[in-house]
Formats: sequence, C-alpha cells, structure tokens
Amino acid sequence: MTPDLIALFRRLTAGVYVVGVGNRSRFDAFTAAAIMQVSYRPLLLALAINPRHASYELLRSGQAFSVSVLDHSQMDLARRFGTDADDAADKLSGIEWRHGQSGAPILAQALGFFDCSVRAESAAGDHRLFLGAVIDGALLRPAARPLVYADTGDLDRSAAIFPDNYESAARDAGRTR
Amino acid sequence: MTPDLIALFRRLTAGVYVVGVGNRSRFDAFTAAAIMQVSYRPLLLALAINPRHASYELLRSGQAFSVSVLDHSQMDLARRFGTDADDAADKLSGIEWRHGQSGAPILAQALGFFDCSVRAESAAGDHRLFLGAVIDGALLRPAARPLVYADTGDLDRSAAIFPDNYESAARDAGRTR
Repeated sequence: MTPDLIALFRRLTAGVYVVGVGNRSRFDAFTAAAIMQVSYRPLLLALAINPRHASYELLRSGQAFSVSVLDHSQMDLARRFGTDADDAADKLSGIEWRHGQSGAPILAQALGFFDCSVRAESAAGDHRLFLGAVIDGALLRPAARPLVYADTGDLDRSAAIFPDNYESAARDAGRTR
Repeated sequence: MTPDLIALFRRLTAGVYVVGVGNRSRFDAFTAAAIMQVSYRPLLLALAINPRHASYELLRSGQAFSVSVLDHSQMDLARRFGTDADDAADKLSGIEWRHGQSGAPILAQALGFFDCSVRAESAAGDHRLFLGAVIDGALLRPAARPLVYADTGDLDRSAAIFPDNYESAARDAGRTR
C-alpha cells in the first residue's frame, strides 16, 4: 500500500522554501515545504516543523522565522539546506544572506521572502505548528517560477516515514492527539 | 503597495481542492487552497477556513471533511464550488459524488481524495485552523496534473482582502491574536 499512499500525498501541491530561524547571534536555516497562508487580517503564515529538527529550539527561542522562496532552478539550495547537519555556519557559508527585521536569515538569491514574528505554537501530531505574523516581505524576481515540492522527488526522504496504509494511520491517530 | 504584496503571496505554492463537509443528512462543499500535510504519524492535514463561510458550522458540527484534489483542467469545478451561495444542493446537482467513510461528500471526478476526521480546531487570525486525521484516501487518476492556485488568477477574490502594506499588516497583527 505505501507507494500508493505516498503518491496520493504528492498531489497536495506545495512549494519549497528555505526557512531561517534565530536572532542576530545564533541562527540556522532549513528546507521546508509545509508552509501556507492562513489569514489575511492579520497576515499569518502557518509552518509545520518536526520538533526533533535541530532548528526547532532556535525557532522557539527566537520567536521569529523567515521564508525564502526558491525558484525552480534552485534544487541545489533545497538540497544544501535539506541536510540534517546542524552546523549552520557550513550551510550558510559561501551564500549571500542578510538578517531580516526579525533577525532571521534571508537568502539574497531567493525569488522573494517573508519575514515573520511568531504568534502561536500548537501540537500537530509528530510536528509542531507555528503561526507567524508577516512583518516584512518582498518579491525580488517577479519573472522567476517557484520550485514545486512534487518536482523534488524524495529529497526530504519522507517516503520512509509514511505509515503503510490507512488502517495503520488510523492506529497512529488513535494513539496520538 | 498592495499589488506587490499580493504578487508576493501568490508565490506561496498551493493546490486547489473541493472540501466536502457534513454528514449523511446535511452536507456542503467549497473550493479551498489553504490545505497542507502537517504530520506523518498520525497522518494529519491542516485546513484554514473563514468562520464566516457558510460551510464552517457544518464542518464544526460534522467533525469531518473530505478533500477532492482538482486537476488542471477543472477550473469549472473550482469556480462552481467557489461561489458564496450556501445552497449545497445546487452546487452538487448534476455532479457525480458519494459520501466518504466520514460522511463528507467526495467528487467522483477528482484526481484523488482524502477523507478526514477532525482532531483539533484553533484560532488563526481571521480564519480557523482545523487538523484532520486522514482515515481514507485514493489516487484515482495518477496521470492527471493537479490544478495550481497561482493559475486561477483572482478566482477567490482574495486580492480585495489583503492589507495595503506591511505597516497596516503590523497594525492588524497588534489588534488580533
């Protein structure tokens, strides 16, 4: 069953972003797809993150995150920031970036960016869900086409963490809230 | 400032779905883009909905929703279920559909579908955020390409509800939590 279930979830259309976290003294960045707009007034983005991820504590303590939108030619950046290595200096070295108003790092090569201040955090199964108020942003390259998650294959190696079938998913759902 | 701000938010990549709500006796369906996967174990989808929407109370009372994934040729369905009319019979008449395990209506013409049981509801600015455990689903047409939100233009007339600029957005964020 698993291949069918994974194939279905790949039809949920998503982008590919580099999320920057932290403040002016400590910071990190990682590749993410689970980002969407959830409110207009105020302007809020939702971001899901695995709490075992090295960047989670920094997101929590900094109470800020940036979203650098990747374009379809930037699979190399998606791969670079998609590694588990928690050595932020390595991931950002040789790449042009700056601190946003929130302090979180923003990639200069991004198609565009959002800079967010955390407003809420809640449980969401094996992830945590953050709501960020958009305090700044810009479209840097209007002609560029965004990178789409379905086109990245199994870059995030998520295929290995899906349940085998819906019966197994239902059991997971019964155990966790 | 508004056109730039809207253009930036259009670079958040999203799909287009018909969300079915309700149970076997009362039901409705509406077009939505704010849907993403947030957890693997359990399998959870997040859905943002405007609480002034006619379907909100039915989603809340039925504690279930389905997600019918539209393909790129189904703008007509996106338009049909994107109207504000709360006459469910009109929107579903002449269209083939069935009740999912949850009771929520699923479109037969969908590229694929997810059937979800509501696990949590929380505030998210001018919207409400629901988490649904995926209890069933299927990929019906593997070769079809999903419809992408950015390709629908201003189908949802959201351009009118964005704040004018980030200063205004920050004021909104200060007023609402």
